[in-house]
Order: sequence, then structure tokens, then C-alpha cells
Amino acid sequence: MHFADSLMAAIRRVGNPVCVGIDPRPEDLPDGFLDRFPGNRAGVAQALLEFGREVVEVVAPIVPAVKFQAAFYEAYGPEGVSALHATASLAKEAGLIVLMDGKRNDIGSTAEAYARAYLGKVPVGDRFEPSWVCDALTVNPYLGIDGITPFVKVATREGKGIFVLVRTSNASAREFQDLVCEGRPLYRHVAERLADWALPHRGDSGYSFVGAVVGATYPSELAELRQALPGVPFLVPGYGTQGGSASDVAPGFDFEGLGALVNSSRGITFAYRKPSAVAKFGPDWKAAVVQAVHDMAEDLAAHSTTAKIKRS
Amino acid sequence: MHFADSLMAAIRRVGNPVCVGIDPRPEDLPDGFLDRFPGNRAGVAQALLEFGREVVEVVAPIVPAVKFQAAFYEAYGPEGVSALHATASLAKEAGLIVLMDGKRNDIGSTAEAYARAYLGKVPVGDRFEPSWVCDALTVNPYLGIDGITPFVKVATREGKGIFVLVRTSNASAREFQDLVCEGRPLYRHVAERLADWALPHRGDSGYSFVGAVVGATYPSELAELRQALPGVPFLVPGYGTQGGSASDVAPGFDFEGLGALVNSSRGITFAYRKPSAVAKFGPDWKAAVVQAVHDMAEDLAAHSTTAKIKRS
Repeated sequence: MHFADSLMAAIRRVGNPVCVGIDPRPEDLPDGFLDRFPGNRAGVAQALLEFGREVVEVVAPIVPAVKFQAAFYEAYGPEGVSALHATASLAKEAGLIVLMDGKRNDIGSTAEAYARAYLGKVPVGDRFEPSWVCDALTVNPYLGIDGITPFVKVATREGKGIFVLVRTSNASAREFQDLVCEGRPLYRHVAERLADWALPHRGDSGYSFVGAVVGATYPSELAELRQALPGVPFLVPGYGTQGGSASDVAPGFDFEGLGALVNSSRGITFAYRKPSAVAKFGPDWKAAVVQAVHDMAEDLAAHSTTAKIKRS
Repeated sequence: MHFADSLMAAIRRVGNPVCVGIDPRPEDLPDGFLDRFPGNRAGVAQALLEFGREVVEVVAPIVPAVKFQAAFYEAYGPEGVSALHATASLAKEAGLIVLMDGKRNDIGSTAEAYARAYLGKVPVGDRFEPSWVCDALTVNPYLGIDGITPFVKVATREGKGIFVLVRTSNASAREFQDLVCEGRPLYRHVAERLADWALPHRGDSGYSFVGAVVGATYPSELAELRQALPGVPFLVPGYGTQGGSASDVAPGFDFEGLGALVNSSRGITFAYRKPSAVAKFGPDWKAAVVQAVHDMAEDLAAHSTTAKIKRS
């Protein structure tokens, strides 16, 4: 199945575009969580896996997608990477769309290795096997099309997707992305090239498997890019902890309320730390996660300037 | 010790600036190599580790540094990543400067996780432990200074380094990096900001631990950037298989023949496949590796327009 079609179907199924970002910082895990595991790197990795597994279990019925931030797993070396691999596989088994947020890229022949790794299959003996279980990968555009084509080729073959960084959600995104080159900012140049990369790869939903990362923290750029990139699905980070609001995110959707997946990481997985959640749920951190998802879905719907998502 | 000082000392010790890129493609391993290991993903990962171990053994006495291309290990999932971790540790034990070519980056809080992962220490129980063994990491600049500062902070504390992508070696590097923004190409803007990031962090060698990646395949840009970035060490990919020659690389060095590390990956590790090497060394692929390093070192020295490197 085409990645964007699967993604839009998943959004319709649950009726919201919430992506739960799983960025496990050990220091933010619920009280006592780490103590259940050995006090070494492998033990922390086991804790990350267990935390991710529990998050996946509670969110799988209520959101379309999860996004794993590779950095927080790579931080614990190969043991951490094993935890990432296992958690991503569990998320897929639970029926979620699985995004790997690795922001990978390189020259063509190396980009091909990343593409095969995360989206395709690798040679093992006389056959090809998948190494990772995920549906889409975030990709950095600085190297130009050489670094994009291998991902597009593999994604075409395997029914997978990519999200190319266009406008990131951080404060210094402006530093290079807003430099005015030949009359318009760099991120618009990236967006224009992205349109060329994306448009031949639209599915029945009208959306391409080549998407864009556009931060919630830049609402006017988000609105402008939504206009400029019809048929390109957006992955919108920056809602919640990073400061993006539901009204900031609203212009990212199409007239059916589709076309954008809005990510929240700490705001959901570590919702149990908010004073209101402490008062309401006490040590039941999973109830706080579920509540945070419902609150976010409602907030997005309430501020949507487009039609509500029609549930399938 | 300061990263750049260690790097320059290592270059002086061996008398050449050759960096051996370890990018193990299973399909390029010597005949029969893969057959020694189980025919599954873990077996391929073991083969990558064994190949890397043998390369490290033969090159450790004759080059200053090795560079691991993470993609080729991530291709084999957590097992591949374990092989990368083990090979990098062996390279460090063998006395080499170890560069991790991951081209990582993200928003600040996530960049901090990558910085801690590869260059620093991570929290484990009530202490901090290193997860990875490497001296420097390649970093992508698209997100601006938020994505650089965390690496600089950790590198300062730990005596590590980073190499920021300025001008990559691939053909489509021009696509965004050459866009003319406010009167000069994007890569010059990146270089200017890099100068600001680098200059406060020079060691006794006069070089900073904040370096730049500048491809051998763009010799005029290399010459121009060497002038523009005194005190910034260059990691120069693209020599050999990608088409960069020794005279292309020559402008990357300072007046002592220092300041640049020139990488060759396939041209060295898979040198055994060249007809001349087949004739001379037959199945002794390691002899072909050693010969390729000596040939490259001589080629660079013969075409150097600056003084020869003074051996310490």
C-alpha cells in the first residue's frame, strides 16, 4: 500500500492527526521506573524499551502514528539501538504508522545504504531482508537530490515514505533556512525542489509519499507552505513543549482536516509531570498519557479552520 | 587533550594526512569473506566487524585516522550497530583518531542527546558513562546554531571534535549549497558562521576542534575555503573513487602540509579489487590495503603545493 494512503486512512480511522513522539529521556521517566532495571547501560536501554512498549500499548488505539527520536536511543549505544528496534517493531505490530526520526542523509551511495536500512531490504546471503521496521524516515536536504533519490527509489518499491526537513521547529531555523537566495528564502527553494520530488508519487489519497517537516513554531511559514505544496503530507513538530499552539498548527491542514500529522513528544509521554496530571492521576502515568492525547486531539479539532476529519 | 592537537600530532607521527574510510558494503568484501559467518543478519554484522578489525590492524601503524560510515552498519540493524561500536572501540585501542560519519543533527535538545551519545557521557544510575568510543562526529548545519552549540559544549568538556558539512563531495552539492544568498553562495554563509563557532576553540596547534567537511571534488571551493577558514581543520572526502585527485586536494593544506585530513574509503578498503592489485597480491587483500594507503600518501605528498609534513 502507498504510504500516504495508509497514513491518511490511519488518521481517518482514529479521527485525529496526533503523532506521539517517543523521545525517552531517562531523567524524565516516571518515579521508580529506572529502578526496576539493572544500573548499567543495558539496564537503561531495557527501561527505554519497557517505557516505549507501555506508551505504544496505550496510544495504539487512539492515534494514527508514533515517531521515534533515534538520538535518545543511540545515546545508550548498541543496547539503546536494540531497544529502538524492538520498540519500533512493537509499534508496527500494534497497527501504528511508525516514523523514524533520524534526519539521515549523505552522498548518493551512502544515502542508498540508509534508504535500504530503514525503508528497504539489505542483502543477506542470497536473499534480501528488512533490517528495521518503520514506515517513513526523516531526511535532511542539505546535500541536494543525490541524497534524496535513493530514498525515493526504495520508498517507491517498498510502499514507504520520507519527510524532508523544510522548516524546522527550532529558534535558529532562521539562520540558514531564511537566507534570501535569488529572491526567496532557502526553505522555499527546498520546498520547490521537494514539490518536484513529491508530485510524481501521489497515491489515491492525493498525497505523495514524499512529505515535508514544517515546524508548528512558524505558523505563517506553515500556512504559506501548505499553499505551495498541495499533495505533500506535513510532519509538524513543535506543538506543546516547544511552544506551537493548535491555532499555529491549523493552517497546516487541507479542507478535510487532513494532510498534516502533528507531533508532540514530551507533552504526551511525560504529561504525568504536569501539576494537573499529578493531582488527577497520581502515579498512573499512562492515564496521563491518554488524557494528554485526548486533550491534544480536542485542542487541534477546536482550533481547526477546516472541516473536521471524517472518521472512516 | 584538545582534539585538533591530537589530530595534528597523529598526522605528524605518521607523516601523512590519510583517513581510511570504513564503509563496509557486504557485496564488496573479499571473496569468501562472508561465507565464514552465519547466513543471517547477525552473521553479516559479524563479518563487518571482522573486516573492520582486520582493516584497523593493518592501517593503525600507517595512518592518523579512520572514519566509520554509520549507514553501512545501521543497514544491518542493531547487530550492525553493535559491530560499528566494537570496531570503533578497536580502532581507538589501536591508537587511531576515530571519526564517526553520522551527519547527525536536530533541534537543540535532541542535538544534545546526539552530542552526549557520540562525544560525551550519558546518565546511568547516579553516574555518567560514555556510550560510544569516538573522537569526532560529522554534523549537518541545516538547523543553524541550535543544532551546533550542544556539540561544541560537549566537545569542549570532553576533548572531542566535530566536522560540520560545508561543501559536500557529491554532484548535487551545488543544488542548495551554491544558491546565492545575499551576494554569496549558501556554503559561504555556512563557512562564515562556522568560523565564529570554531575560532574560540583553537588548541596549541592553532586549529579548532570545530572542523569543516569540504569535498575534494570541488577544488576551487576547497582553495577558497582554506583561505576563508584559517584554524579550521578540514575533513576532505571524495579523493579516489569519487573522482577527487591529489592536485584537487592540494589547496586544502596549510603551509606545513597540515590542516586537512583526506579520506578515501572504497579506494583503500576495496583496493584488492583493482586489476593491478589482483595481479600483485592475489587473495592477500590486506596487502592491497597497505599498498593503497602508501600510494595515496605518496600521491598527496607529490602533488602538495605546501611543505611536506614534518614527522614528529
